[in-house]
Amino acid sequence: MPGWRCQRDICSAGMTHYSRLAAIALDVPEPEHDRELAFWQAASGEQLVQDDDLPEYHGARWPGHDKLLLLVQRLGDGQARVHLDIHSDDVEAEVARLEKLGAKRVQHIGHWWVLQDPAGLLFCVVPARPGSLTDDNAQRWD
Amino acid sequence: MPGWRCQRDICSAGMTHYSRLAAIALDVPEPEHDRELAFWQAASGEQLVQDDDLPEYHGARWPGHDKLLLLVQRLGDGQARVHLDIHSDDVEAEVARLEKLGAKRVQHIGHWWVLQDPAGLLFCVVPARPGSLTDDNAQRWD
Repeated sequence: MPGWRCQRDICSAGMTHYSRLAAIALDVPEPEHDRELAFWQAASGEQLVQDDDLPEYHGARWPGHDKLLLLVQRLGDGQARVHLDIHSDDVEAEVARLEKLGAKRVQHIGHWWVLQDPAGLLFCVVPARPGSLTDDNAQRWD
Repeated sequence: MPGWRCQRDICSAGMTHYSRLAAIALDVPEPEHDRELAFWQAASGEQLVQDDDLPEYHGARWPGHDKLLLLVQRLGDGQARVHLDIHSDDVEAEVARLEKLGAKRVQHIGHWWVLQDPAGLLFCVVPARPGSLTDDNAQRWD
């Protein structure tokens, strides 16, 4: 969500923010999507519910993990892959932090950023619900 | 660890066992390994420690998650990918359960199995420490 709280230079110059791993997403091309969804539903023992706002996603909490989601994303095409979602209360500051460490911005979608790590793996930085990240459940970056 | 507790047919016919998601592994070819390891160490804020028995793995607990590991695996070659590790107190029973749901056995390595899900994504079923899986932190399969 670049720019809505602060300019990038200010955010990345040391404003305190939080981030945490929040979801594991299985990205699946259309032909295998339904079988993949059924498989991970049965494998995890959880009902994967379609998201109202993002219908390409089905999700559930991973059993045994309080705050970790299992997501299955329907892809138009491409190859099946796994990606991680990092939630942050300041997306721009978190993306700037990760860029300094070697990540590259790939695409800005809605309110989140798709990044690429040094080995080329995609991952996302997604806005967290306000107030949901604390010293008890996330990393604080000063 | 096939066969050490029971025959496959007996295990898969309904013996109670537990399983849970235990780790997210980033599998990285040799040329990118060191940069990837340094990146995720700084990104997570955790020191990734090399495993004594499996030196190709470095690992740490994900911040904010009690029982979830971040692993970086050095690959000889191949393409970077993410794989999930499921821990179970009865690997053979868990693999048989997942096979019935549509997974395929790919390779038996040490005490664990590499499987492929319906979209072709690799994941592993790995022995859990005896007694570590309970109704509070894992799924029970009767």
